[in-house]
Amino acid sequence: MNKTSKDITKLIKPQVRKLAAYHIDETPCRIKLDAMENPFSLPALVQREIAKAVNSAAINRYPDPSGKDLTKAIAALWGMKPANMILGNGSDELIQAILLAFGGPTLIPVPTFAMYEITSRALSQTVVTVPLNESFDLDAELLLKKATESKAKVIFLACPNNPTGNRFSDKAVRKILDKADAAVVLDEAYFSFSGKSYLPLLKRYPNMIVLRTLSKIGFAGLRIGVLAASPSVIAELNKIRLPYNINTLSQVAAVAALKHKNIIERQISLLISERENLYNALAQIKGVIAYPSETNFILFRTNTDATQVYLKLKKAGILIKNLNKPGPLKNCLRVTIGTKDENKEFLKTLKNVLDTENTCHRDTETQRKAISKR
Amino acid sequence: MNKTSKDITKLIKPQVRKLAAYHIDETPCRIKLDAMENPFSLPALVQREIAKAVNSAAINRYPDPSGKDLTKAIAALWGMKPANMILGNGSDELIQAILLAFGGPTLIPVPTFAMYEITSRALSQTVVTVPLNESFDLDAELLLKKATESKAKVIFLACPNNPTGNRFSDKAVRKILDKADAAVVLDEAYFSFSGKSYLPLLKRYPNMIVLRTLSKIGFAGLRIGVLAASPSVIAELNKIRLPYNINTLSQVAAVAALKHKNIIERQISLLISERENLYNALAQIKGVIAYPSETNFILFRTNTDATQVYLKLKKAGILIKNLNKPGPLKNCLRVTIGTKDENKEFLKTLKNVLDTENTCHRDTETQRKAISKR
Repeated sequence: MNKTSKDITKLIKPQVRKLAAYHIDETPCRIKLDAMENPFSLPALVQREIAKAVNSAAINRYPDPSGKDLTKAIAALWGMKPANMILGNGSDELIQAILLAFGGPTLIPVPTFAMYEITSRALSQTVVTVPLNESFDLDAELLLKKATESKAKVIFLACPNNPTGNRFSDKAVRKILDKADAAVVLDEAYFSFSGKSYLPLLKRYPNMIVLRTLSKIGFAGLRIGVLAASPSVIAELNKIRLPYNINTLSQVAAVAALKHKNIIERQISLLISERENLYNALAQIKGVIAYPSETNFILFRTNTDATQVYLKLKKAGILIKNLNKPGPLKNCLRVTIGTKDENKEFLKTLKNVLDTENTCHRDTETQRKAISKR
Repeated sequence: MNKTSKDITKLIKPQVRKLAAYHIDETPCRIKLDAMENPFSLPALVQREIAKAVNSAAINRYPDPSGKDLTKAIAALWGMKPANMILGNGSDELIQAILLAFGGPTLIPVPTFAMYEITSRALSQTVVTVPLNESFDLDAELLLKKATESKAKVIFLACPNNPTGNRFSDKAVRKILDKADAAVVLDEAYFSFSGKSYLPLLKRYPNMIVLRTLSKIGFAGLRIGVLAASPSVIAELNKIRLPYNINTLSQVAAVAALKHKNIIERQISLLISERENLYNALAQIKGVIAYPSETNFILFRTNTDATQVYLKLKKAGILIKNLNKPGPLKNCLRVTIGTKDENKEFLKTLKNVLDTENTCHRDTETQRKAISKR
């Protein structure tokens, strides 16, 4: 027996070996505004109802494989039909299932939600990217051209888009739905914060797949993603879906929670109003460009090194998302809408950080000039 | 726009389109002995502790991406090391992750757990099968020959095996671990009921991957699968694993439940003792061959059409698993060990069904002979 022959990592697909693992910043922070979570806890009444549902759940039995009750509850919440739906262990699993069913190449605009590319690459599938224009909007012609050239099987369009926060022009999206010979996945993770949805067009566009999630509206811990598509697509995706993909507790907890539609909607309204306040405040800060948002987060650009701003905020106990890298997101940061108090503290700290940064920067500039004058 | 061009099912991989969806028999039955579930509910005390943990969980936040607390709890339960572990949304997800990382072909003995083949095919990977011998044991030479010929990347060995219930000979398993140039996955889903494990050999065989699950020992509803392997294999599989694959409620519930190791162990002992009683009783029924089991189920063969037996049991409110098809499992059925009362009723009903079947069969034979004599 040759010892070295037993290192099975060499048998792992080269496409997987060359990948880096997905990194999540788990720094514990006082104020967590990095992950588009709903900042509100559930009212004690709802928590109690969830605990009650959990208490009477048969944990020793396998979950309902098709999640019938939860599917019905979500169908009622969002005006869907169970025959058009599949539930996933978060949208992540549904993105993976779509990619496994259709294969590659995957076509995505950039910048967009990272998991489309990460999941495609983990499945050794090719990724074709199409840059968004300066307003972060779609160039439908260019996208369709690239789709045809690459024979893309799946096109992901996040509506609204993450991390830019805007909705793509409706005309561009419809043109892609009309013309593309590919599955067009409209990821509506943030639709609750924009109020606009392509779901009513499902019958008209059988090449359309809509993704939704309970994560952004208060239930990120449950990992419930929702996919809506034509029944024939659902039938194919169900062959890929693992039989018991939604655990019992998430099923019963979500069913209990979704009975309180009014609470969910009130939280969404509050967040939308907080988003407008935060956007207006950010837009008034010198050295900050804030981008309009139809989501529960805001993208903004700083006139100084955004990575330093991010690190200083983190040091002050406020975690946001650092998107700074060369390209369209140079010096960009993304902040999730928090509670009124969290947003206030974020703003105050950001202003302090930027003041210090700009002062330092000016000081360094002054020093540099003083030195160069010598 | 051409309407037919919009049917995107034609874009789905042909390997997926030709698959049939996995079918789960969801007939509601009084006595459910089909799915290797632990028949015991949790004591009220443990249920309350779980509900309490759930009640204080932050459902609005994403789950711990690496499930640190649960990983530690399982490591303590089974003598594992967190650095060697990954958690999955059931073993199903871990099987899928292994197949995605290594690619195909997949090599499996037959008969064995259906998900190895189903998942491989859903991923469009080739499946090579090697028949077990008459005692349902491995022919290591034959398996290794086929592994070399097919350049198999992954070999699945369920230890003990499902649906046959036996452990493969240790010599055969070790020979495969020694010689195979593939990842050898030892699926120990049922190890608690046999008490024997390959886990201590992990250091010696870096080509070994061990799978475990909480499903058979009382927590099927939580969907917690466990994978143990060398840290270098873990690092690669973590690139495939979806970032938040274990929801918060399953994490906190399992941590709370695993504190009661004594209860879990008592239930396992009870089931082992019930298994021995049921095996002895089955072995004494005329027209039944029962196979010895180191799991929480028993495979048995009837001398009459097993599908009829299965259907009649179901009509009487007892659901077991029908495995009857031409080949090694001809007229075979699989019954999960239930509570004392459930097993008793299953036995009584089975005897009745077999009596009726054999009488009918004799009657039909007599009639047929009478007719042919005319």
